[in-house]
Amino acid sequence: MRKIRSALISLSDKSNLKSLLQELRRNNVKIISSGGTFKAIRKLKFKCLDVSDFTKFKEILNGRVKTLHPKIHAGILNKRNKKSHSIDIRKNNFENIDLVVVNFYPFEKTIKQTKNHSKIIENIDIGGPTMVRAAAKNYNDVTVITSVDHYSELINELKKNKGSTSLKFREKMSRLAFSETAYYDAVISNYFNKFNNINFPKRKIIYTNLVENLRYGENPHQMGALYSQNIKNKLEQIHGKTLSYNNYSDIFAALTISKSLPKNAGTVIVKHGNPCGVSALKNNLDSYESALGSDPISAFGGIVSCNYKITQKIASKLNKIFLEVVIANGFDKKALKILRLKKNLRLVDSSKISFDEVWKFNSIDNFSLIQSEDKKIFSKKDFRIVSKRKPSRSQLDNLMFAFNVCRYTKSNAIVLACNKSTIGIGSGQPSRIDSCETAINKMSKFSKIKDEIVAASDAFFPFVDGIEKLVQSGASAIVQPAGSIRDKEIIKFANETNTVLVFSKTRHFRH
Amino acid sequence: MRKIRSALISLSDKSNLKSLLQELRRNNVKIISSGGTFKAIRKLKFKCLDVSDFTKFKEILNGRVKTLHPKIHAGILNKRNKKSHSIDIRKNNFENIDLVVVNFYPFEKTIKQTKNHSKIIENIDIGGPTMVRAAAKNYNDVTVITSVDHYSELINELKKNKGSTSLKFREKMSRLAFSETAYYDAVISNYFNKFNNINFPKRKIIYTNLVENLRYGENPHQMGALYSQNIKNKLEQIHGKTLSYNNYSDIFAALTISKSLPKNAGTVIVKHGNPCGVSALKNNLDSYESALGSDPISAFGGIVSCNYKITQKIASKLNKIFLEVVIANGFDKKALKILRLKKNLRLVDSSKISFDEVWKFNSIDNFSLIQSEDKKIFSKKDFRIVSKRKPSRSQLDNLMFAFNVCRYTKSNAIVLACNKSTIGIGSGQPSRIDSCETAINKMSKFSKIKDEIVAASDAFFPFVDGIEKLVQSGASAIVQPAGSIRDKEIIKFANETNTVLVFSKTRHFRH
Repeated sequence: MRKIRSALISLSDKSNLKSLLQELRRNNVKIISSGGTFKAIRKLKFKCLDVSDFTKFKEILNGRVKTLHPKIHAGILNKRNKKSHSIDIRKNNFENIDLVVVNFYPFEKTIKQTKNHSKIIENIDIGGPTMVRAAAKNYNDVTVITSVDHYSELINELKKNKGSTSLKFREKMSRLAFSETAYYDAVISNYFNKFNNINFPKRKIIYTNLVENLRYGENPHQMGALYSQNIKNKLEQIHGKTLSYNNYSDIFAALTISKSLPKNAGTVIVKHGNPCGVSALKNNLDSYESALGSDPISAFGGIVSCNYKITQKIASKLNKIFLEVVIANGFDKKALKILRLKKNLRLVDSSKISFDEVWKFNSIDNFSLIQSEDKKIFSKKDFRIVSKRKPSRSQLDNLMFAFNVCRYTKSNAIVLACNKSTIGIGSGQPSRIDSCETAINKMSKFSKIKDEIVAASDAFFPFVDGIEKLVQSGASAIVQPAGSIRDKEIIKFANETNTVLVFSKTRHFRH
Repeated sequence: MRKIRSALISLSDKSNLKSLLQELRRNNVKIISSGGTFKAIRKLKFKCLDVSDFTKFKEILNGRVKTLHPKIHAGILNKRNKKSHSIDIRKNNFENIDLVVVNFYPFEKTIKQTKNHSKIIENIDIGGPTMVRAAAKNYNDVTVITSVDHYSELINELKKNKGSTSLKFREKMSRLAFSETAYYDAVISNYFNKFNNINFPKRKIIYTNLVENLRYGENPHQMGALYSQNIKNKLEQIHGKTLSYNNYSDIFAALTISKSLPKNAGTVIVKHGNPCGVSALKNNLDSYESALGSDPISAFGGIVSCNYKITQKIASKLNKIFLEVVIANGFDKKALKILRLKKNLRLVDSSKISFDEVWKFNSIDNFSLIQSEDKKIFSKKDFRIVSKRKPSRSQLDNLMFAFNVCRYTKSNAIVLACNKSTIGIGSGQPSRIDSCETAINKMSKFSKIKDEIVAASDAFFPFVDGIEKLVQSGASAIVQPAGSIRDKEIIKFANETNTVLVFSKTRHFRH
């Protein structure tokens, strides 16, 4: 237990201060402060000593130097039980500071609000982190509070222990303090890297905020949690059971595809991270039915992402099958009423979420692979027609649609499409020919439409055999990246079978 | 340009100091230092002013407070072009500090060397980061050097600019300084979280070091890099073309499986992140041939991971097919000679690498899913025999082998095995029945051995149909987690067909 006799308070966020000050007064704690915090405390009618009067050193450089003083830091850093330290304190006429309540200049908020570099630089706090780090280091004797959120916990602690804090409490607050200073400098470091266009710095520090502890990870024997760099950018769950790790993983996979479709149109069904049905049809009901028709067996227990507001009519259709999650760009009141009949069905409103970051991290043990996202928006310019037969406008549209779905399907990926909807998806196979077979099997199992089938491949065909299978199954137009030593053979085969063949400039592996 | 007239030097790592001091002397730079650094500078016969003589304040608390003084921090933080700042400096009889050369107490090294908590705490540097952060904030006027690695760059800069530094240089060093302070506190924060068994703190800060800029990410239009928390834990490439992003991704997938096999035995072949052949046979040549035999088509262009030292004989076999990478627990000299004949083949020695971290990160846009790794080592105790027919010892061994491979295969995963080797793998399918079909197709295409086939499923069968297909194809023993509402039906079917059925306690989804 350590009695708190003096406190140094320096705050950028001055909210909720009153109850804390009352508790400190009840315990006769001497309060030291400066600048805006000093004024705020006096305005609330509490006694307070100005830092300058405490140190006998007047703040200079517009406040850049005020607490960076030996009297402050010796008061925080001295080990109370160490004789030589006590002697040093006495000799210098210093005194202990038992509690440090500090929050920092709002650097993260500032970079969100302005691009003015010197204003941003001015918001790098030097004195605050120094006091916090000193107090956190000396948690054996000193209590450090770094967030308004911890005031009530401190008040309870002081009440419970008659003006003292326990080692356990101080240790916890010290841990939280170091997470604040690390977070603070991580934001600064990332800002500087971004400002200087450094994508892969020698030391990369990633900061992220806990959104939710999950019941478990991919499997019940694994722990899991969801984090976000921007906690305001939220998925809003409006009904159903708690979302699981695998739900989130599939939701993100589904939303990534949905965001690539035309605005407010299209349906995506995802299972185990892969799309099993995608449609970009403008009519929402049609798009849902087409996406489902692509592979209704796999859709069982899947996740449906609607790039539009769900109406009563679509809700009734959705309710006919077992789904884990429905994500939508909003829900009609009547639609909600219907969907809520299923107690367990999770409903997620994605209308407020934005996807804008460009980096993707993947860790394996202590290694991390970091890459920019595969976000290239492709146009018809990226397609080079290499066959004698030229694609019709609708063929070209469908090829672009199918190739886009490929991009979000795990490699090797083959997508068969027709009428802006998938009709067969082959994913996650170690051999491209296997993905062709899977896609074709899906099509023959479920698809009734058979006119103007197009096929897309995420990477080049190493042999003619894959293309051959696709053409035999009815594909009249195929898109693939170039690059095989057998490209010429493949073009020859396309011409012999009067197939449209398009080479795309980009490859779209995804693992 | 800013002329450097004074420097504050405070170093934990005092190596390579001489050439820097010589350059500073050449430019008549006044040097201020303290403690061990002061002694080291004097020992090298350079002039140096003690911090205490500079501040007129004697260091106290065993050095805990020495540089935390207004004279130091005003000297660093004042804006040289701002009149009011210059007046403050003059009034207080302070002077400018133009260069700050500081590296920190070795916190990261200390936690690797000791478990002594108070010794670790003592290695949290307070004064160092404060000076560095102050100098980095004021980079418009001040130069900050935080690593011995930057001395030569500073020396060149001073030579080039006759004792001055350019804004560009100071800005770069400031950026590197903030990456140091962020990294430093990230290590501290993670240490405290670990010390207190906090798995998912409110603010998570991840620190990692650049190992290598990669030519590109998964695709040529994506940027990519490899990072590691422990740069000493290296994969050693000993031959061949530069490793690509996809190579690394597959290498990690392959090594994770290899590490789960018995020590110094077993071969794994990976393609697109999935195993296409795994064998745990003790004889290395047999294990390689069995792994390859599982799916020789997919192995084309794949990655082979040998959990053993490669001999001449195996090298000759490996050279017969086109492979991207061979990873091994060492290579015989004669084996190397053979493998090096293939100019492009990448050879990686994994004998020195250890995998020990437990956390796995996956980011999607600004969200991150964090989970503990699926590292549970399972024993026979995790298996509950639910069929009338009991497994033979070899069946049980094969079931355990197959279930382990399942764990590393993307869901839905079905693994057919025989003689401690896979003979058919179905992966990455949205529907379990499709994975069964894929695995069976592989087996019928490539496998000659057909006695005592076992099958493993990473999660439960929702219907009887999957099990039915496997039994029809010759599987005599099956392992799957329990959990379907049709478990009883499935047990009944197993009994009717005299099949061994085992329920495992754990599920092994992997996406």
